[in-house]
Amino acid sequence: MTHRAMNFNAGPAGLPLEALEETREALLDLDHTGIGVLEHSHRGAAYERVHQEAQGHLRALLGLDEAWSVLLLQGGASQVFATLPMNFLKPGQRALYAVTGGWGEKALEEAQRLGDAVDVTPMAKQYRRIPAAAEHRVEAGAAYLHFTSNNTLEGTQYDAFPTGGGAPVVCDMSSDILWRPTDLSGLSMVYAGAQKNIGPSGLVVVLVRRDWLAEARRDIATIFRFATHDANGSLYNTPNTFAVYLTRCILRNLLRDGGLAEAERRNRAKAARLYSALDAEAGFYTLPVERPHRSAMNVVWRLGSPELDARFVKEAEREGMFGLKGHRSTGGIRASLYNAVTLGDVEALAQFVTAFARRNG
Amino acid sequence: MTHRAMNFNAGPAGLPLEALEETREALLDLDHTGIGVLEHSHRGAAYERVHQEAQGHLRALLGLDEAWSVLLLQGGASQVFATLPMNFLKPGQRALYAVTGGWGEKALEEAQRLGDAVDVTPMAKQYRRIPAAAEHRVEAGAAYLHFTSNNTLEGTQYDAFPTGGGAPVVCDMSSDILWRPTDLSGLSMVYAGAQKNIGPSGLVVVLVRRDWLAEARRDIATIFRFATHDANGSLYNTPNTFAVYLTRCILRNLLRDGGLAEAERRNRAKAARLYSALDAEAGFYTLPVERPHRSAMNVVWRLGSPELDARFVKEAEREGMFGLKGHRSTGGIRASLYNAVTLGDVEALAQFVTAFARRNG
Repeated sequence: MTHRAMNFNAGPAGLPLEALEETREALLDLDHTGIGVLEHSHRGAAYERVHQEAQGHLRALLGLDEAWSVLLLQGGASQVFATLPMNFLKPGQRALYAVTGGWGEKALEEAQRLGDAVDVTPMAKQYRRIPAAAEHRVEAGAAYLHFTSNNTLEGTQYDAFPTGGGAPVVCDMSSDILWRPTDLSGLSMVYAGAQKNIGPSGLVVVLVRRDWLAEARRDIATIFRFATHDANGSLYNTPNTFAVYLTRCILRNLLRDGGLAEAERRNRAKAARLYSALDAEAGFYTLPVERPHRSAMNVVWRLGSPELDARFVKEAEREGMFGLKGHRSTGGIRASLYNAVTLGDVEALAQFVTAFARRNG
Repeated sequence: MTHRAMNFNAGPAGLPLEALEETREALLDLDHTGIGVLEHSHRGAAYERVHQEAQGHLRALLGLDEAWSVLLLQGGASQVFATLPMNFLKPGQRALYAVTGGWGEKALEEAQRLGDAVDVTPMAKQYRRIPAAAEHRVEAGAAYLHFTSNNTLEGTQYDAFPTGGGAPVVCDMSSDILWRPTDLSGLSMVYAGAQKNIGPSGLVVVLVRRDWLAEARRDIATIFRFATHDANGSLYNTPNTFAVYLTRCILRNLLRDGGLAEAERRNRAKAARLYSALDAEAGFYTLPVERPHRSAMNVVWRLGSPELDARFVKEAEREGMFGLKGHRSTGGIRASLYNAVTLGDVEALAQFVTAFARRNG
């Protein structure tokens, strides 16, 4: 039995053991073909089945019909926020960005390299909250409104999604896609790097309405047009076949184990357990995020000093808990509680949170 | 013992068993960390070591000093030939393309979407040969000269590389990088999708001279600037950590087993064995490529009819040999003999080639 650490990494993050074990077998031999999953042609029947299933599971989990294109691409969320304005920001138009964290800042910056784009929710750079719907200064006639549903760095999360005042709404859902049943009917595009709440790195999921795709610019490189990948079923060029395989296994098991309703129940229980342990020692731990905007995926806090933060991380590692060091841009502590993190792991962390405070408080 | 087929796929292609087995172990536990290779942060020490080693092995195999940047990116060769002109084709300049096959055509097309680019080796579309150096109509003052060292579809391969008449020379080496010791001193950039002669899909290697990088355009999306990835050691965004790990294992073993000199000896023996079996039945098999331009990596031939081609493929599969069907654009038969294909596999195929001809000739 392999020893497995408790993994609270922000992404790449822990993955479900069952899917990893299935993938191990497929590395040398996919479905008794005598050929490993990496060694099959992406144009052959064995891989195509995997590819279709991964897309089908995403449709099933998120209730997406054929009005939506489901794309499995390379380059991560960073590449999608670069190609988004290439596809959808036309000369004379303005793109709106609800910047609520560091990743939103980067997305806006890339749009501004290309055309007219503005932040419609200017707020304090500490990003301790999510603006209310009315605080989004949406203008008529915009190319689109972009927002980040969950801020991985700052630990904030949207509950209700903003509306675009008629403009298509685009969501970077990298760190909270599939965390609960999600109504995408108000959105025109969703994208998510897989390495947080889906699967391994090297894969980004793009969900986009086909009627909006039809309006996209055609004068950009073929490979950067989302329409190219839609027309080719995400097989325009060789995909990351390994990542698609593992994702297929993870999504299939997620469906089998109760789907997103059950995922939400588990995720809410995990977040509640950890936040309550932290709140119970409120004199010792500081939680920067305003309570209604706390993320269920990324829980951030800090101790009295950077030295104490470091000791917390070090002692947690000694007890088998890894990935707790905050992002280099924010410092402090961060525990990411993505779908693959078990309630048992969170229970262990919560108990450590309590014990550490009592020992050092 | 897992049954393993003989795999002549053109890419994704067969991979060395030893590296696959090492990777299987790392999926659940990388270097006794209790955390699988996919689950480590790309900013952590365990993954960073892997990342550095993969780059170091490429430097060692190809004799690259610090004048070269060694990048491990996503998006495959198709993305690189789209971003190449974005980086290096400036207004008022012309890019030269030595188009010797279908992939070169696509690369030229992407450059033409963006600026002025021309084919400097116009030739018959069957692409049965490689033009001589003097046939490359190189003009002074060009942005760069692009060529494809090995044509995966057509089965042709450059022996001596063309020169750019002063312009930087860029090579798509996707299907024959690392096949033999290669002098890159006449080139300014090399790129290669990993899934042919290196490792798994989802990774593309870009080797580029830093002095040329310094001249690249800065007014494009951050993620599409090769300079961004050079400045960040290919960790600007989350890399395909799995593919880098497996590539690291494959390259390390390649170095251990005699490096590129030994690879060349094996690859030449493999190609000689198969071509000689085919030539011995020259009435039965048609080899379209002119002899001096035959590829050692992709051997293409056809039988008397598409029906006979199909029977050849089917009967070969019954004997455990897969991936022999020619590309959908060319038809016929293709056997790819990348580094991971063993001499034993080729011996079996050569014997089948002979026996099939005698049974059906």
